[in-house]
Amino acid sequence: MLKIILGKGEDRRIRSGHPWVFSNEIRGLEGDSQPGRAAEIYDAGGGFVGTGYYNPRSLIAARLLSRERTDIDATAFFRERLEKALACRRELYPEMTTYRLVHGEGDFLPGLVVDRYGDHLAVQFLTCGMDVRRELVTTALVGILAPKGIIARNDVAVRGLEGLTETVELLYGEIPEIIEMEEHGLRFRVNLREGQKTGHFLDQKENHRLLERLAFSREVLDCFSYSGSWGVHAAAYGASRTTCLDISERAITLARENGELNGMADRMAFEAVDVFDRLRSLKTEGRSFDVIVLDPPAFVKSRKTLKEAEKGYLTINRRAMELLKPGGHLITCSCSYHMGRELFHDLLKTAAFQARREMRLVEVRSQAPDHPVLLAVPETEYLKCFVLQAV
Amino acid sequence: MLKIILGKGEDRRIRSGHPWVFSNEIRGLEGDSQPGRAAEIYDAGGGFVGTGYYNPRSLIAARLLSRERTDIDATAFFRERLEKALACRRELYPEMTTYRLVHGEGDFLPGLVVDRYGDHLAVQFLTCGMDVRRELVTTALVGILAPKGIIARNDVAVRGLEGLTETVELLYGEIPEIIEMEEHGLRFRVNLREGQKTGHFLDQKENHRLLERLAFSREVLDCFSYSGSWGVHAAAYGASRTTCLDISERAITLARENGELNGMADRMAFEAVDVFDRLRSLKTEGRSFDVIVLDPPAFVKSRKTLKEAEKGYLTINRRAMELLKPGGHLITCSCSYHMGRELFHDLLKTAAFQARREMRLVEVRSQAPDHPVLLAVPETEYLKCFVLQAV
Repeated sequence: MLKIILGKGEDRRIRSGHPWVFSNEIRGLEGDSQPGRAAEIYDAGGGFVGTGYYNPRSLIAARLLSRERTDIDATAFFRERLEKALACRRELYPEMTTYRLVHGEGDFLPGLVVDRYGDHLAVQFLTCGMDVRRELVTTALVGILAPKGIIARNDVAVRGLEGLTETVELLYGEIPEIIEMEEHGLRFRVNLREGQKTGHFLDQKENHRLLERLAFSREVLDCFSYSGSWGVHAAAYGASRTTCLDISERAITLARENGELNGMADRMAFEAVDVFDRLRSLKTEGRSFDVIVLDPPAFVKSRKTLKEAEKGYLTINRRAMELLKPGGHLITCSCSYHMGRELFHDLLKTAAFQARREMRLVEVRSQAPDHPVLLAVPETEYLKCFVLQAV
Repeated sequence: MLKIILGKGEDRRIRSGHPWVFSNEIRGLEGDSQPGRAAEIYDAGGGFVGTGYYNPRSLIAARLLSRERTDIDATAFFRERLEKALACRRELYPEMTTYRLVHGEGDFLPGLVVDRYGDHLAVQFLTCGMDVRRELVTTALVGILAPKGIIARNDVAVRGLEGLTETVELLYGEIPEIIEMEEHGLRFRVNLREGQKTGHFLDQKENHRLLERLAFSREVLDCFSYSGSWGVHAAAYGASRTTCLDISERAITLARENGELNGMADRMAFEAVDVFDRLRSLKTEGRSFDVIVLDPPAFVKSRKTLKEAEKGYLTINRRAMELLKPGGHLITCSCSYHMGRELFHDLLKTAAFQARREMRLVEVRSQAPDHPVLLAVPETEYLKCFVLQAV
């Protein structure tokens, strides 16, 4: 077994609950250090810190899976972790079978994401250490959930940081072209093979319910609508008119299908347009809205592109605020981890100033609880959902 | 009319939506500068910034009430502001008559707090500028709400910063010894003359509902219970046993009365004890709980006492975490503005480390929406309510 010996004091953050070992925190290695290998981690004084896996190609050189001596190459280990994760979801959502079953570090399985859509699972192996254990994970998942199919949605850029390629792969059984899922009694068509993320934005589940008290008899604008989950909720909660905007023709087609599936399409409009441009032209046309949702894809992919992304967030938020009726609500999100809560707050303040609108901060929400956040691991939290009201 | 001329660039923060002028931001004064007087505020170039009131005794030398030229010594001004505030509450709580009607800066009435308990109002004049306008405020309130009584609960230390004394005063009509209010269908006895704050913690209204999904058939510990609002909610939501702790005999008596009023007292226990000590002795006795609420009074009264207060928060949170059953929930609050969200988060992380507990961060909540927060005025937000779960 590989032994990783940390530099002096480098165990501190890890012992306080954080599972990452950065490459510059390592003083020495003993044993087979091939990418993905299981490793025991020791502090500078030889004290045992935990068990994890190693990847010399990554800046995050090791991730802890356990604070004890544990065989992380055994199915039993994954079975136990997955059962715990499942118990947690069953407690959260006793009547549901669609949820994020594993949220990486938040479920003490760094690098692994499992989204359950009833009988079908979409998984992501985001680290080399998890990628080399895909058989173990698959076996454990089959054993616990007996799914009809498991697909690996490994088409994510973050794998590059671990020296992994981007692929989509059927791991088990069959995955249909399109499946149907339910959220708050509404139906959504989901493409598990090619949809964004693993097909649906499960992390906004509870946030969609914000529209229950805001949308009734109101005019709603859903920006970056993707498959229309905000928009369909707005219509279902009684919005007089809901307009979905997305640059992707395919997304807008899916949004329209979802509107029709729920019998809401007659009170909805769908436009395949660039949202930045459309927000500007809506203003020129003198349009205004009671409720605007801004739920853009992650503009910030890394710390390097943060400045550029800030401009994007500022522009769309300023334009959205300009389109709000007095008393109207803006639900504005950022799913970029690097766009921290305080930074996003400041940016919204600037947007309000530029738009010459006085805004109330009604509520700040985060991701759904099946995407658990660990108090000691800030990286497990990424979603910010601010609810603002024009005074 | 007094004219306040700001130093160069000192209008920037104010123009971006913040209503305070600090004494060191003022370059000059023209006219009658007696405490409390109405003032027009100008930038260094002579541009009009807004209308407010002035107090030479306070570090916050002026507060803006309007961005326009406005007569703030007219009943009409207060009537209009109060009507806006009332419309906002009626939208928030169409079926309720107990709420915070005016939350100072958050309702564009700096220095004024009005809590409505049905036919009775408890008000606070926190600044000299508002204190000298008490007649105008009273007249406007009587005109709009026709209350049976208005009491001024000016027994708050913050008035000292404005050169004001601490008093309690009947402003209008009658205020009974004890009134009864309703929250989520539960009844609470409230002492408007002597109770903490204005009698009840209206700011935790929505947060009390957290217990709806957490308390059923669980053992709950309510620390710093005051009049038992968390505890009675826990019992009402089906807690098998709820224990209220508070150092004040009077608070515990009130909590017991509220338990009895709702027919819950047989499933509740009440202890008049020092919470710090009792948390320690409960551990010695080997006790543990499914749900613990920590809702202490503001330990931090100013930035100066922050370090001392941090120790207090750390101690109670560490001890509470030690008493949690596996899977148990901690609802932990801080109502000190100076204990910022990030600081409180870090402190909880340290507490978890010291208690050797891995904690999930389930949710972070704030004050009830009848205590509105302005995006541009961070001082309008003070309550933090973290929901944690022991893994």
